[in-house]
Amino acid sequence: MPPTIAEAVHDPVELTRALVDVESVSGNEAGLADRVEAVLRTAAHLRVDRIGNTVVARTDLGREQRIVLAGHLDTVPIAGNFPSRTDDGLIYGCGTSDMKSGVALALHLAVVESRPRHDVTYLFYDCEEVESERNGLRRLGVESPRHLTDAAFAVLLEPTHGLVEAGCQGTLRVMVESTGRRAHSARSWLGANAIHAAGEVLRRLQEYQARTVTIDGCAFREGLNAVRIAGGVAGNVIPDECRIEVNFRFAPDRSETAAAAHVREIFHGYGVEVTDSAAGALPGLDAPAAKDFLAAVGEAPRAKLGWTDVSRFAALGIPALNYGPGDPNLAHTREEHVEVAKIQAGAAVLRRWLAG
Amino acid sequence: MPPTIAEAVHDPVELTRALVDVESVSGNEAGLADRVEAVLRTAAHLRVDRIGNTVVARTDLGREQRIVLAGHLDTVPIAGNFPSRTDDGLIYGCGTSDMKSGVALALHLAVVESRPRHDVTYLFYDCEEVESERNGLRRLGVESPRHLTDAAFAVLLEPTHGLVEAGCQGTLRVMVESTGRRAHSARSWLGANAIHAAGEVLRRLQEYQARTVTIDGCAFREGLNAVRIAGGVAGNVIPDECRIEVNFRFAPDRSETAAAAHVREIFHGYGVEVTDSAAGALPGLDAPAAKDFLAAVGEAPRAKLGWTDVSRFAALGIPALNYGPGDPNLAHTREEHVEVAKIQAGAAVLRRWLAG
Repeated sequence: MPPTIAEAVHDPVELTRALVDVESVSGNEAGLADRVEAVLRTAAHLRVDRIGNTVVARTDLGREQRIVLAGHLDTVPIAGNFPSRTDDGLIYGCGTSDMKSGVALALHLAVVESRPRHDVTYLFYDCEEVESERNGLRRLGVESPRHLTDAAFAVLLEPTHGLVEAGCQGTLRVMVESTGRRAHSARSWLGANAIHAAGEVLRRLQEYQARTVTIDGCAFREGLNAVRIAGGVAGNVIPDECRIEVNFRFAPDRSETAAAAHVREIFHGYGVEVTDSAAGALPGLDAPAAKDFLAAVGEAPRAKLGWTDVSRFAALGIPALNYGPGDPNLAHTREEHVEVAKIQAGAAVLRRWLAG
Repeated sequence: MPPTIAEAVHDPVELTRALVDVESVSGNEAGLADRVEAVLRTAAHLRVDRIGNTVVARTDLGREQRIVLAGHLDTVPIAGNFPSRTDDGLIYGCGTSDMKSGVALALHLAVVESRPRHDVTYLFYDCEEVESERNGLRRLGVESPRHLTDAAFAVLLEPTHGLVEAGCQGTLRVMVESTGRRAHSARSWLGANAIHAAGEVLRRLQEYQARTVTIDGCAFREGLNAVRIAGGVAGNVIPDECRIEVNFRFAPDRSETAAAAHVREIFHGYGVEVTDSAAGALPGLDAPAAKDFLAAVGEAPRAKLGWTDVSRFAALGIPALNYGPGDPNLAHTREEHVEVAKIQAGAAVLRRWLAG
């Protein structure tokens, strides 16, 4: 009989397994949130709040500054990888990397570290793996911002394989449209082929020279890519429309507005409609709490190449970075796993940083 | 009370309306085939056969050669254009152009011309507007070829707006595939974008110089066109596959095999799969029966730019051409109509040609 979350809380490795073994695919986090809440309520030094399936636990020691440790409780759908299993220093299973091993570090620390040298807000939230509208951190920022706005710095325990990944890229999606004129394909010269016209859009994409921007020592590499293309009416009709969905991953020195203007300029002459947009986040490594966190880790930070919820903290004016034991390349795969050694190392870093 | 088919058979204009007013969307031709068969059986000079919903009527006068007059009984689905209506010398309605006005010429002539100077096989067949497998003319060629193989020449009464359209283009469809390697779009340089790679396919299409080939005085203009494109996995994934459906309309001096080889050469370096292929038909205007038909029409022939069932006759070794009163550009439209004057002129041409 494997230990429960309550029984495992003193060992972040056992705790990772116990968390993985409570299924919590996005939308189904209630059972896991209940257990996390119950464990947190056993710690006398924490004030615990429950908002939907988001659990917030705060120390209140009157420290000079407050920091946040945050992680999401949900996972992508199970893919034959539940419950967890161990093999040669690895824990396999859905959520092991993304991000129940990170959640385990925060939950463990919340319970065992009763006198941290900063006040700490521990955040465990739901629905990170689904549409932004449902994201628990976003909702907390809207519905109960007081839980966030008094913090000076945040660590998001998303998988980084034990490295510090600072800030994040922004992401923009646009629909680029080429148009033409329908005709029967047996008399194609009477029409204008919108798919052929899309060739120029693809040429511009292929010739695009993406920037790499270094900020606070972190190199943000951009990318502009077609992610979908669709066009055509029927097998015997010259098509009058072709739509290309383009994803622009941009360095955080561009605003969303500037990113959209850049993309419109690239596709000058074509219809461009923005369908999705999320700001990047600057690394913010000059914040004092960030500096002493980096010292505790003892390794140079690098840029987060991807969009994460650090951007939501950045939007609230809270510098944030990503730091977790999971390997981001294993997230969302059937073979998802985490190294036991990375969990142990991460727990040591956080204890070193927060020990009073 | 408009006249029935039996009552209208002596007037090809009235007969067109009567034929249009019996709904016969592909698959539902039985009622119309019954009426056509019944009218043909009233003519003592015809031997009538019924094969499914295809009706064949033959004279047997011992003439030196036999010709075919053929038309399909079915229409595309009704689009608010049933029953027929007339307006200022035009008959509107589903099938007026494609091709009940042509069927009316053949049915009228079959009944009134009891002593034609060639033996005539009149063919009224089903399911031309749907997949080739169901085509009544194709089935007749397979199941009862004796009805076809003794003919020296065929006129297919498809809409040509009163002109002679000789032969037809072939048509080939291929799927051209570009491939790549998936990656997260935030780290796009780890992948290879198959949609971007498809840009080269579109460039070759756009730069393609289509031939115009003149055969028997008929100019066949070719065309190579993308008709559909599809690619993409998700909004945050570099796509590893993009598929472009290309339609090649080719002059009848190319065989299907030669056409496929040409297209493979154009898209050298990409996966090319043939998904659909139909041979063209040479004009065959040097056949004696074709020459005297052209003399009766009195106008220069031109190439048929499109694929029609003349190709099925050509495959059986029977020269065939298209000649009908409808306007091909109105076929399959809500506004489909035919000019009364074109019906009358067409009937006069056929009588002039066949009068004994």
